[in-house]
Amino acid sequence: MVNVPEQILSAIKTYNSIVITSHIEPDGDSLGSVLGLARALSKAGKNIFVPLNSNIPEKYSFLAEMLIPYRELLPNPELAVVIDCSSPDRIDWGVYGSPPSVPIVNIDHHVGNIMFGDMNWVDENAAACGEMIYYLIKKLGLELDEISATGLFTAILTDTGRFSFINTKPNIFRIAAELQEAGADPKKIGEALYCNYSPSYLKNVGIALCNLKILSDGKVAFMVLDHKNAQELGTRVNDSEGIVDFAIAIKGVEVAALFKEVDDDKVKVSLRSRGAIDVSRIAQLFGGGGHKNAAGCTIYGSLKSAKETILREIERDLKKKSFA
Amino acid sequence: MVNVPEQILSAIKTYNSIVITSHIEPDGDSLGSVLGLARALSKAGKNIFVPLNSNIPEKYSFLAEMLIPYRELLPNPELAVVIDCSSPDRIDWGVYGSPPSVPIVNIDHHVGNIMFGDMNWVDENAAACGEMIYYLIKKLGLELDEISATGLFTAILTDTGRFSFINTKPNIFRIAAELQEAGADPKKIGEALYCNYSPSYLKNVGIALCNLKILSDGKVAFMVLDHKNAQELGTRVNDSEGIVDFAIAIKGVEVAALFKEVDDDKVKVSLRSRGAIDVSRIAQLFGGGGHKNAAGCTIYGSLKSAKETILREIERDLKKKSFA
Repeated sequence: MVNVPEQILSAIKTYNSIVITSHIEPDGDSLGSVLGLARALSKAGKNIFVPLNSNIPEKYSFLAEMLIPYRELLPNPELAVVIDCSSPDRIDWGVYGSPPSVPIVNIDHHVGNIMFGDMNWVDENAAACGEMIYYLIKKLGLELDEISATGLFTAILTDTGRFSFINTKPNIFRIAAELQEAGADPKKIGEALYCNYSPSYLKNVGIALCNLKILSDGKVAFMVLDHKNAQELGTRVNDSEGIVDFAIAIKGVEVAALFKEVDDDKVKVSLRSRGAIDVSRIAQLFGGGGHKNAAGCTIYGSLKSAKETILREIERDLKKKSFA
Repeated sequence: MVNVPEQILSAIKTYNSIVITSHIEPDGDSLGSVLGLARALSKAGKNIFVPLNSNIPEKYSFLAEMLIPYRELLPNPELAVVIDCSSPDRIDWGVYGSPPSVPIVNIDHHVGNIMFGDMNWVDENAAACGEMIYYLIKKLGLELDEISATGLFTAILTDTGRFSFINTKPNIFRIAAELQEAGADPKKIGEALYCNYSPSYLKNVGIALCNLKILSDGKVAFMVLDHKNAQELGTRVNDSEGIVDFAIAIKGVEVAALFKEVDDDKVKVSLRSRGAIDVSRIAQLFGGGGHKNAAGCTIYGSLKSAKETILREIERDLKKKSFA
């Protein structure tokens, strides 16, 4: 069992009115973890407020619905728990606008968390914040029910890439078993997350894949989502989350890119890599950011010049790697 | 723990030369289960022969490689174990051509298995034959190692749809944990199965999705893979396994179809449904077959007439359902 700091257990036990939040542009781990903790603490009699203001993606609407009971403003919070945020500028404080004047508990699993909390629990070995919140709930002696288990199962499922990333450990499967016994439904959650496409989104996948090009002896794959095709098929270029993942899933591909022509002189670039190449370096060159294997940026210029610029950087990194 | 018939345990313990096989057109569950049992029995000192002759799909090549040690003909087998076959006409006897004159053990989880074995163990509640072989290996007191665990993990992963079908039970997660501890690598297996696309396959996905059409108030989705587009993008129409699954994963869609123009007057149709509609009824009308939620057939005629014929049947079933 993972070690949960005593100070954090004690603060959560002591205070009755607790704000629980996460980062802007929330994902499965942040929403599921917030829901899991909010529900468990609320059932234990605490007053809980989740100020999350950021747009919740459609596929997580089942979690958003379960969060409704925790959307009522707390006049006098005593403690804030921030989950899955590596730096304070990405925290979604919602109606508060800025941090409330209460002690802040920082719970995260990201490498490079800057320890912004009054109390910090950062475990880079945790597969998901959902795993950490599971241990926290256990240590607090609280009950898991269908709602908290659904939140934590979703958190773990999404942050382990459906139990397939390197962070999938035997204990992750054992926690999944227990969450299912507590009421999480793998079929329902899987369908909500992975069988919930819109026709417009799938047509964008189609446009991108028809435009798929392979370079550098099969090591680079790139795709384009352009205005013209989107207009013909009646889709929105921005409806494109995750499309780049198809290209990085090609056998032998080490770097993949998706170029989205969001405007005549504005191209959004999504980058993915497998293994050694650090695509965040490339994204940072153009004011973007991200992680080593997943990053993005926006290039002001034509589609053609954006492609040339980014592909040149990718090929540079591939060459450097082959000489290393 | 599931009940393994004593007679089967005793037969496997008694005989030393054992043939282990499965069905033609093998899949993850059949190959993984055969590998799991072959490896565990072989390590226990048995002579094992796996006669599988059917083409093994590319994505299971990592299992095929691990099966190589069990491809050497046994001159005098004493027992045959057939896994994952509901009827004897689909058994792949390989070089034997027909059943060897030895007792046959039938291990399966399909509804409607016709009990063709001399000994039968059919458990319709098992998520995968891989789950049954796991219990069998445990009951025999045999060891799991990296190879047998990789086989069984693959079997369970594929037959539970990545832990998301209704057959995913808490015990499936617990078995997955144990298989990982025995050496199965979720990341490696997941990448081999789900991150191993060819560019040509993905372009076919692109063609199909660009052709996506929605009918019947969003309840029917269909796609077309035609000669002309395939020729333009340099792909083979037949490289299309699983493409229809994108369309059935659209929110609200109850029936999905993919029409593949394999020849000028020959159209292969893949059908999927969610819930009540039985697409095997439609496939059977045209000499095809399958299961309630996944079926297929071949229609001799033009693409246009194939579409009209099948879509008429689908709409008929939808209407019948809405009056039911």
